[in-house]
Amino acid sequence: MSATLDEARVHGALDSFNVELPSWGFSNTGTRFRVFPQPGVPRTTEEKIEDAATVHRYTGATPLVSLHIPWDRVADFSQLAALAASHGMRLGAINSNTFQDERYRLGSLAHPDAAVRESALRHCLECCEIVGATGAHALKVWLGDGTNYPGQDDFRARKRRVSEAFQRIHAELPEPASLLIEYKFYEPAFYQTDIQDWGMALLLAQQAGERARVVVDLGHHAHGVNIEQIVAILLDEGRLGAFDLNDRKYGDDDLIAGSINPYQLFLVFNELAGAGREPGRTGAGAGAVSYMVDQSHNVEPKLPALIRTVMTLQEHWVKAQMVDRQKLCDLQQAGDILGANGVLKDAYDTDARPLLARWREARDLPPDPLVAYLDSGEEQRRADARQDGTGAGWA
Amino acid sequence: MSATLDEARVHGALDSFNVELPSWGFSNTGTRFRVFPQPGVPRTTEEKIEDAATVHRYTGATPLVSLHIPWDRVADFSQLAALAASHGMRLGAINSNTFQDERYRLGSLAHPDAAVRESALRHCLECCEIVGATGAHALKVWLGDGTNYPGQDDFRARKRRVSEAFQRIHAELPEPASLLIEYKFYEPAFYQTDIQDWGMALLLAQQAGERARVVVDLGHHAHGVNIEQIVAILLDEGRLGAFDLNDRKYGDDDLIAGSINPYQLFLVFNELAGAGREPGRTGAGAGAVSYMVDQSHNVEPKLPALIRTVMTLQEHWVKAQMVDRQKLCDLQQAGDILGANGVLKDAYDTDARPLLARWREARDLPPDPLVAYLDSGEEQRRADARQDGTGAGWA
Amino acid sequence: MSATLDEARVHGALDSFNVELPSWGFSNTGTRFRVFPQPGVPRTTEEKIEDAATVHRYTGATPLVSLHIPWDRVADFSQLAALAASHGMRLGAINSNTFQDERYRLGSLAHPDAAVRESALRHCLECCEIVGATGAHALKVWLGDGTNYPGQDDFRARKRRVSEAFQRIHAELPEPASLLIEYKFYEPAFYQTDIQDWGMALLLAQQAGERARVVVDLGHHAHGVNIEQIVAILLDEGRLGAFDLNDRKYGDDDLIAGSINPYQLFLVFNELAGAGREPGRTGAGAGAVSYMVDQSHNVEPKLPALIRTVMTLQEHWVKAQMVDRQKLCDLQQAGDILGANGVLKDAYDTDARPLLARWREARDLPPDPLVAYLDSGEEQRRADARQDGTGAGWA
Amino acid sequence: MSATLDEARVHGALDSFNVELPSWGFSNTGTRFRVFPQPGVPRTTEEKIEDAATVHRYTGATPLVSLHIPWDRVADFSQLAALAASHGMRLGAINSNTFQDERYRLGSLAHPDAAVRESALRHCLECCEIVGATGAHALKVWLGDGTNYPGQDDFRARKRRVSEAFQRIHAELPEPASLLIEYKFYEPAFYQTDIQDWGMALLLAQQAGERARVVVDLGHHAHGVNIEQIVAILLDEGRLGAFDLNDRKYGDDDLIAGSINPYQLFLVFNELAGAGREPGRTGAGAGAVSYMVDQSHNVEPKLPALIRTVMTLQEHWVKAQMVDRQKLCDLQQAGDILGANGVLKDAYDTDARPLLARWREARDLPPDPLVAYLDSGEEQRRADARQDGTGAGWA
Repeated sequence: MSATLDEARVHGALDSFNVELPSWGFSNTGTRFRVFPQPGVPRTTEEKIEDAATVHRYTGATPLVSLHIPWDRVADFSQLAALAASHGMRLGAINSNTFQDERYRLGSLAHPDAAVRESALRHCLECCEIVGATGAHALKVWLGDGTNYPGQDDFRARKRRVSEAFQRIHAELPEPASLLIEYKFYEPAFYQTDIQDWGMALLLAQQAGERARVVVDLGHHAHGVNIEQIVAILLDEGRLGAFDLNDRKYGDDDLIAGSINPYQLFLVFNELAGAGREPGRTGAGAGAVSYMVDQSHNVEPKLPALIRTVMTLQEHWVKAQMVDRQKLCDLQQAGDILGANGVLKDAYDTDARPLLARWREARDLPPDPLVAYLDSGEEQRRADARQDGTGAGWA
Repeated sequence: MSATLDEARVHGALDSFNVELPSWGFSNTGTRFRVFPQPGVPRTTEEKIEDAATVHRYTGATPLVSLHIPWDRVADFSQLAALAASHGMRLGAINSNTFQDERYRLGSLAHPDAAVRESALRHCLECCEIVGATGAHALKVWLGDGTNYPGQDDFRARKRRVSEAFQRIHAELPEPASLLIEYKFYEPAFYQTDIQDWGMALLLAQQAGERARVVVDLGHHAHGVNIEQIVAILLDEGRLGAFDLNDRKYGDDDLIAGSINPYQLFLVFNELAGAGREPGRTGAGAGAVSYMVDQSHNVEPKLPALIRTVMTLQEHWVKAQMVDRQKLCDLQQAGDILGANGVLKDAYDTDARPLLARWREARDLPPDPLVAYLDSGEEQRRADARQDGTGAGWA
Repeated sequence: MSATLDEARVHGALDSFNVELPSWGFSNTGTRFRVFPQPGVPRTTEEKIEDAATVHRYTGATPLVSLHIPWDRVADFSQLAALAASHGMRLGAINSNTFQDERYRLGSLAHPDAAVRESALRHCLECCEIVGATGAHALKVWLGDGTNYPGQDDFRARKRRVSEAFQRIHAELPEPASLLIEYKFYEPAFYQTDIQDWGMALLLAQQAGERARVVVDLGHHAHGVNIEQIVAILLDEGRLGAFDLNDRKYGDDDLIAGSINPYQLFLVFNELAGAGREPGRTGAGAGAVSYMVDQSHNVEPKLPALIRTVMTLQEHWVKAQMVDRQKLCDLQQAGDILGANGVLKDAYDTDARPLLARWREARDLPPDPLVAYLDSGEEQRRADARQDGTGAGWA
Repeated sequence: MSATLDEARVHGALDSFNVELPSWGFSNTGTRFRVFPQPGVPRTTEEKIEDAATVHRYTGATPLVSLHIPWDRVADFSQLAALAASHGMRLGAINSNTFQDERYRLGSLAHPDAAVRESALRHCLECCEIVGATGAHALKVWLGDGTNYPGQDDFRARKRRVSEAFQRIHAELPEPASLLIEYKFYEPAFYQTDIQDWGMALLLAQQAGERARVVVDLGHHAHGVNIEQIVAILLDEGRLGAFDLNDRKYGDDDLIAGSINPYQLFLVFNELAGAGREPGRTGAGAGAVSYMVDQSHNVEPKLPALIRTVMTLQEHWVKAQMVDRQKLCDLQQAGDILGANGVLKDAYDTDARPLLARWREARDLPPDPLVAYLDSGEEQRRADARQDGTGAGWA
């Protein structure tokens, strides 16, 4: 970090750093072996928004909440938007779901049967309507489509089916909303996934239209893949749409962002900061990249886990701001490997927490949001208030 | 394959090739995203045994069925054994389960709280009693224990807790039953698994006692790991206890054995055949290695999938018998890389199905068990007969 | 395999199955730890062509030999083409090399210094001229470019530099030759590789022009990647240019094709056969996909290894022909997972060697090319004849 | 970090943090594609020791240098030890080399030919003598042994050969020196490695004798393996002997320690600190764990890279000291996942550099050793002084 770091500039970068929380992040989740239910989980979409607002109240960084259809389908979406506003929140992206219905056992948009594909398409088009009704900035599509055994279906036929569907969805999506296409290396399919990597997602986006862009989920890659490079490529092509933030050690573990490989998180943010992108800009313009959280808090308490997530994201966002870009560029150009690497190391090694505490103080936020939340008694009150009814589950 | 292949010897090897089917292999299973229920799944342990007996009737190779406690807990285990016998079946290993109870959220035998550990231990000791009551050849323990975040618990303390528990279990296990210790690379824990690889399982087995041996599940390794070498090492140490057979491309996918990497299955069987071990010998003696199936038929029909599994296993077992061992040994000793490799390739490239068809004919089995089953109408009758009640689920 | 397999059709498919051998495949190679020199390795490009011709004489399937510049630079390329013709061979693709010169320590076409980039570009343009001089069907470019440490260089800047260079190369490449762009997951760079996967190679090909296509090297992927799906995608986009055939268990091991995961080789060939593509068609038209070998015979003898390679490729090509495509398509459409998978399994399980022996007999080739070569005494004569001078090394 | 951090205690931990530099770390190295020679590389063992002493002069943390036989074989080892002493250095472990001689093409201690095995054994016994002559604390053995193709050799036979050899070496090794056994996932062998993981190394150590212990090289694991857990297991078994420190993203990349995944380095050090082990204690007693560097500076300058390495190691060692162990233990026991994880996060997030600067000042070392070295002009003087002769290469 340069001695002349302009702290005011970093404060500005923090002001515009907005994270979008998923409504399903507050619900019970688990592995295929077991879902461990937690006390106080929301029972309705309204309570999910309430929880997201709580995280925002402590961190000042999560003014958006993504919805998932059908889990969050309500009779009146404009009323839901108003409710969110009353909590100081906005509705974020609309997420479709074509992977939990009986009919989708062999796929949805890629299914060999045209009737099933049509059914899945209709669901996506309904989500387009909800984008319109809520003023959401994007429709986000993750397909669970794939095959479990060699020969089960025809790769090229499936590719064409998915591409055609995205073209139709793009055409129906109200402007200026983005069509966000997510890729995933594997799971739930175990032999082949129809949108398996960034290359496939980009190809589909190119074929779908100008507002189609790619979602990078940090856990959706093969081991060893350089994710920050993918981020740079998509930025350069104008096709980076959003992140699903989390961390992993093995598969798609959906652990807290930055909890396993924090340096990688820094390197990803460094690409954003280096490209002059402010994550959290939620418009649909070319420069917007949404920062979404997609985690599964299977054993740890959910609100504290999400507050720590946001704090960790902010810390690494600050470190990315601390990179001396001119010096970095000069050393890169000079071929000074250790020098250029040292510029990143220098920013990363700096403790970002004191600056963050000053920003929080200036914004009337608690200096340590997690401590403040745990000390507040809210966790217990939330559990007490939600004893009746069925806690929302992931599925 | 040598031109002088002694087909009678291979028929004998097929006669002694016995596969153990898991009672849970017939139940509904799925991923964390969705369980797709299937028609005709068993509703009771008795119906699971009935299904296993059906597979045995068509293949002649699956006379054993493993139980899982508590899923298969019955009032009278000797009655259950008698029922199995009436279907021409025997009860196989008893599997403990300490990963689906609320109290085991942070582990079972490795849990930081002594009371929880004691509870898990008691469950394992109950399983020891069931081993006694059923005359089972083994207690098989897979722990879901592990941690999700760095610092969550102390690695060395957990290791000692697990080791002490296994010592107590081994002491209580009726002779001559084996204590089978299974390892798994990851899942359900996502940062650290207490028994994560063969090295750890072997260390625990060494510390537990003479009858403790290791279970190799083909899907429980990091990418690239040479599994056939692990098999050879454990054989050489007299600590190979059993296999959980399946296949995978990514994580612990639990696909049909031999469906993704059939050559690897051959190489594993080649180690067994080369060591003069007859898989399927189900006694508890040093030479016994049990061949268990552990698959998750999430989208494909279960009985047909298991029949194909057994057929695939038999095909690769035959190929392993076809290896010209003397020639292999001579070429290895001479340092003839391509020659020695060619001996394996030659056996593997041979179509094993004609010999298998002859063996089946000689044993009054259908020449193609899968075709025979599909043509029999049994699948429909099974679905019709089991319409009421709740199909057994994995959890 | 259908009982009604048309063997004449498969013979025809074998006639058109032409494999291209790399000139460097006969030279001494090794790991970073050690190069173990072998007797009889060629000392000149002429001797490399001679060796390739020997493989062709025994297998009838390798009429092409790829050149590598500068290793195979000669004064008169038309004379070299004539020499090849006198051996019954044709010159194949021209391979550029911008990774073994001192100036390329930090990259070639992606280098931060414009002067170095220009130097690398000139080398590629010289290779374009050699394409013209030899009538080669393609210029094949593999870049070793990448970075070893975070921050070492700017990802987006490097991407643009490489893309611009390929556009210039494409413009200079004589028609109808293809520009073949190869990707590689890692090595020699250890943090980031400029063309790291098929997505990046495809993007660069799109930007370079119509004749730019992608090379799939079977060893250049992260663990678990579904290569046959990538093949299908590139086929569907009309951008599959060539294969570098080999096999791997860990990194880019460059072992004999089909020696570690033969089923994967079959699944790749199945995509080609399913798409009606005849690998080995060496024209530059859209349908052409070149089958190149790229292996490193570090410890095993080279000519026998290459003969086995070609035999293994032919065996799997035959198996891919044996797939009953109509039945496969029907079962896929019906959602019959096990049935469709069984069609592939059936073809794969069939021993392809008897049919191949009949084809060889009909073509006046030895029934077992490897045995015939080993029995011929050629290996010894080759070693005796090439005792003086320096054996060609990989670098 | 607790507010009451006892800085004097951390200074003491830094005083005892001694890193052992490898003589070959200063020589030219590269990939199989290319070795890029660097100016000023040492031409003799004496110059390697001189370079190691330079690193020690700037960092105060590298008083030991490991030798590699035969590269560092000299006529009089006691004279070499005296020379080292005159530079303020001590000789560290003796490394054997049985992977670069023509005879070891198919292995050394595992070779199928008894004569080759005997030759490799004699080399190791010569190294035992050198241990005696130099008073080295250990003989360190890494075998490149393995096979490239299935069937090439017999796994069980190879295992027994290696085990027998280690038993003989252990018997000949002068007390109290340790026998350090290193494992490596793959390379130079590409199908099977004889000592492929910690489980195998531990098994061999158990069979060899009490002074046999395991070397953990941070780059020698499959992707996803939890290395800090292996460290904990080996510590608990009293069998952790040493580290080969470096970092990797893909294979055995041998990059600068902490340059790719610094948090993992911290977690490894955290296990050591938690177990009360002071890395760098170089005696052969049970508590000693040696910290060796094993890196390959292929493109970056070597002395600066090694100075940065040592600085990075020190920074993470300090962070590991900052962990509040009592609080960690209490929270683990209470099952407070986020709390316990937060104790590690808190220490890791702290900037360790100010404390290190104070320690350096107190020890009369430059506050930033890398800047001081680069400003000193030594790099140029070293290059000027070593223009004649042949720079030492890795092989």
